[in-house]
Amino acid sequence: MRIGFVGLGAMGSSMARKLIEAGHELIVYNRTRSRAELLAASGARNADSPRQAAAACDAVITMLADDAALESAVFDQQGFLESLAPGKVHISCSTISVALSRRLAGAHRERRQDYIAAPVFGRPEAAAAAKLFIVAAGSQDQIGKCESLFHAMGQKTFVLGDDAPAANVVKLAGNFLISAVIESLSEAFALARKSGVDPTQFLEILTSSLFNAPVYKTYGALVASQKFEPVGFKLPLGLKDNRLVMAAAEEKSVPLPLASLIHDRFIAAMANGLAESDWSAISSMAMRDAGL
Amino acid sequence: MRIGFVGLGAMGSSMARKLIEAGHELIVYNRTRSRAELLAASGARNADSPRQAAAACDAVITMLADDAALESAVFDQQGFLESLAPGKVHISCSTISVALSRRLAGAHRERRQDYIAAPVFGRPEAAAAAKLFIVAAGSQDQIGKCESLFHAMGQKTFVLGDDAPAANVVKLAGNFLISAVIESLSEAFALARKSGVDPTQFLEILTSSLFNAPVYKTYGALVASQKFEPVGFKLPLGLKDNRLVMAAAEEKSVPLPLASLIHDRFIAAMANGLAESDWSAISSMAMRDAGL
Amino acid sequence: MRIGFVGLGAMGSSMARKLIEAGHELIVYNRTRSRAELLAASGARNADSPRQAAAACDAVITMLADDAALESAVFDQQGFLESLAPGKVHISCSTISVALSRRLAGAHRERRQDYIAAPVFGRPEAAAAAKLFIVAAGSQDQIGKCESLFHAMGQKTFVLGDDAPAANVVKLAGNFLISAVIESLSEAFALARKSGVDPTQFLEILTSSLFNAPVYKTYGALVASQKFEPVGFKLPLGLKDNRLVMAAAEEKSVPLPLASLIHDRFIAAMANGLAESDWSAISSMAMRDAGL
Amino acid sequence: MRIGFVGLGAMGSSMARKLIEAGHELIVYNRTRSRAELLAASGARNADSPRQAAAACDAVITMLADDAALESAVFDQQGFLESLAPGKVHISCSTISVALSRRLAGAHRERRQDYIAAPVFGRPEAAAAAKLFIVAAGSQDQIGKCESLFHAMGQKTFVLGDDAPAANVVKLAGNFLISAVIESLSEAFALARKSGVDPTQFLEILTSSLFNAPVYKTYGALVASQKFEPVGFKLPLGLKDNRLVMAAAEEKSVPLPLASLIHDRFIAAMANGLAESDWSAISSMAMRDAGL
Repeated sequence: MRIGFVGLGAMGSSMARKLIEAGHELIVYNRTRSRAELLAASGARNADSPRQAAAACDAVITMLADDAALESAVFDQQGFLESLAPGKVHISCSTISVALSRRLAGAHRERRQDYIAAPVFGRPEAAAAAKLFIVAAGSQDQIGKCESLFHAMGQKTFVLGDDAPAANVVKLAGNFLISAVIESLSEAFALARKSGVDPTQFLEILTSSLFNAPVYKTYGALVASQKFEPVGFKLPLGLKDNRLVMAAAEEKSVPLPLASLIHDRFIAAMANGLAESDWSAISSMAMRDAGL
Repeated sequence: MRIGFVGLGAMGSSMARKLIEAGHELIVYNRTRSRAELLAASGARNADSPRQAAAACDAVITMLADDAALESAVFDQQGFLESLAPGKVHISCSTISVALSRRLAGAHRERRQDYIAAPVFGRPEAAAAAKLFIVAAGSQDQIGKCESLFHAMGQKTFVLGDDAPAANVVKLAGNFLISAVIESLSEAFALARKSGVDPTQFLEILTSSLFNAPVYKTYGALVASQKFEPVGFKLPLGLKDNRLVMAAAEEKSVPLPLASLIHDRFIAAMANGLAESDWSAISSMAMRDAGL
Repeated sequence: MRIGFVGLGAMGSSMARKLIEAGHELIVYNRTRSRAELLAASGARNADSPRQAAAACDAVITMLADDAALESAVFDQQGFLESLAPGKVHISCSTISVALSRRLAGAHRERRQDYIAAPVFGRPEAAAAAKLFIVAAGSQDQIGKCESLFHAMGQKTFVLGDDAPAANVVKLAGNFLISAVIESLSEAFALARKSGVDPTQFLEILTSSLFNAPVYKTYGALVASQKFEPVGFKLPLGLKDNRLVMAAAEEKSVPLPLASLIHDRFIAAMANGLAESDWSAISSMAMRDAGL
Repeated sequence: MRIGFVGLGAMGSSMARKLIEAGHELIVYNRTRSRAELLAASGARNADSPRQAAAACDAVITMLADDAALESAVFDQQGFLESLAPGKVHISCSTISVALSRRLAGAHRERRQDYIAAPVFGRPEAAAAAKLFIVAAGSQDQIGKCESLFHAMGQKTFVLGDDAPAANVVKLAGNFLISAVIESLSEAFALARKSGVDPTQFLEILTSSLFNAPVYKTYGALVASQKFEPVGFKLPLGLKDNRLVMAAAEEKSVPLPLASLIHDRFIAAMANGLAESDWSAISSMAMRDAGL
């Protein structure tokens, strides 16, 4: 398939590369052009704008940092809302607000374009290994047609129904659950450490028994060592996702007291100089409160 | 080995049965005698008191509901503190306070008895299938000698160092982590449900991807269905364990804000008539707050 | 002075009336015209738009429900940004975001208009009795010139410095403190009631001793009786103010865990059918959690 | 009247002195005898034990640091439970648990002694000026007889009914409300300071308007200056009272999420070296979280 790809950060670059490797033709766009040029060596063509990237494509995939970046790529003058042909599809993989996803669904429908919300779970390493988990909702017909794309980028695709924003809810709720794992592990390790339990052994016990899941292994190692490198997902992005899940919940009148607690951890981390750290560094707030 | 076994609730009965099946000789005691008599058919002998149960044994195992029950079994006139022979061992499997575990360590040491704190992870089904996870700390020599006992009752034993109360900290921290899973899933499912995401599909996505762990499967099914039966672990016991982890943390000056939040969920659940439910029924508080 | 007055809700109507009684000439505008006409009987002239209301005035006072309403009154085509003469002043009394106040400060400065943020403390009864507390910041020169206006509307004016948004921070922080009083009283009364202490006597003790302040008397009576009428300040407005203080705090990286807790109370109240109640009805959430 | 007085800390010494000044005959006891000898100069007699202090008195007043100290003064061999004559009264002014107050009520009733729970509000300065607020519950007859005692020590006495522990609930709920004032002010001042609002002026605005109460003036000054001296009430005592109100609430199944939040502030303060500070120093935790 011929694919426009907009947004070539750590995640997007790997995803685009996997699509090329699977034999698709890519026209890529990134605001900072150097990242787009890196992909040219692999066979991608560069576009001058999102508008151009999507012009003659079967599908345009977006993987951008936040609502503002995606709004710009779609709705600005150089955005692709007008250049994407009717019957073609926008696959939005970014973690964005439920509200923007709903707006996109409407805007594409008006122009008889299709829209799939297909946010992904996984850090950059997972994207590089095509091990992402993808949650797709929206046009069922197009989800079928794009199966090979999802297959190229991820290890598993979960298909929800016609309501595209539902996929964004699942993604935000999933990120919230990860942040809850970080917070709960942080408190547990603070107690364990001050009680003389070796963090490495404590982690080994947890992940060999009830908590035998990737998320506990990945984040447990960071929490146990209190070393939050390499930066897979920057702390302000974690704060942003927390804000998005709280906004989605507020819209539906769902109190999320644990998300509120984690919100305050993120804010405290920002106030204490951790804006450049991985989001798991909120863990250090629990340690600090415990005098560690 | 010849083993005294004190405390034959849902957990203790299965554990004792597994020891008998493994060829050990059991002398059992339970306050409500009928439960002890049930085991007689399997070959256990009944004792009239904890004192008697431990009198001529190599090891006495306790699996009781709370601190008060264990204190009584050890320190009361009919308790086994005086009847357990020097060089023999008390294996305490109950979920008890760190403070009581420390007191037991001291009391047994004074009488040249050995002491192992060996709390277990697992619900009654796991005990019945000898699938418990056991965390053992204390006399390293005795932990070695008792290996066959742990093997008969559990699928895996994690051995910590000489400081027995450390095992109790691990157990309490582990239960706290489970309660954090329940709370985080409850909030996530409240949001998902009010956003039109099917709970069953949401659970399938979570447990097929990042949250592929027994604890998410077990409790996710309860949270998704909001049916909290059968009662594997009564809500007031969950509240008790929450209290114990908070007490252990307070002693070491470790704030646990997430444990505090869950404490308030337990209290609200008690105030709203859920004292006879499984502890996972705190989940219904998040749903109610969301108007579900 | 000749004054344009935009926004004639329960608060604005009383404030405008007090200005008329003090001898000022008023040109009033309200989206729902009937409320403006009520003031005509008292001598106010009606304007067809905010633009017209401000056209030939010395000062335009705004008292609107939220950011959107004020943005519209200022920046829309029929807004007064272009009609207010240079050297004249906009006195913004609404409870708005710090961000909008900053934007207004800039927009007025560009047009050589003056700007005062002058949010008020007090419920409709206080406005009707000219007993408001006013916090004014911005052009010090204009604050001096407008002294008689503040005097007509309030019992006391506190003057901050040149930075107008600082007044909005004070207002939002003040409302947060009121909401904290409601929450703390609600929890205390839940405990008192379930412990057999008579709520009326409990309130009498508190407000005759350490808590001898208007805010405890007003809200204590509502909490003690659990009757939240008449509606002085609607619950969604309380939620909005909570959101604004959290946004102001997030911008400055200040965690406000108590505001977060109250946020969740507001959301729970919304989910449980209290959108038409007074904001103090969040109190009923604490009672419900206690099974009352 | 002839009065035994047990417990001569900062509060008790002043209260005893006021009783002497009012013409009562005092027999005093303090564990550290030097404090008792200081009062001898004012005309008090020293006793060798609580038992002796209460032996020939009309009333014995206790003002001790915690449950353990009061239990010892009453129930130990040298305690006064057996020496207080039938028909005489124990007036317990300490801040103690509701559970201990209930136990005392029973123990005194059995011996046909009377019991009044009469906890006081006020810091040492208030005690020295006889400006305490006293909340009395229990034997109504004795409360009448002891009116002159309360009058000598406090500025106002609030009389509840026969159920003595109700007075302890009121005291604990009151202390909780004070801690809520400290926490809410701390968060508000963190926001104000980072927004460029002068703390002194902010405090002036609050306490001249809606928050015109002693508790806001006293604690507002401490929060605004972040100087927590002199130490009127040590931080671990504040933590203890927080624990007592949470225990009273748990017994009645009343969730107190704000008390939980404050609990975690106290623990964090303990972990960060503030055990010797005034309890209002929990305020510095909010500042620290905000990076101040």
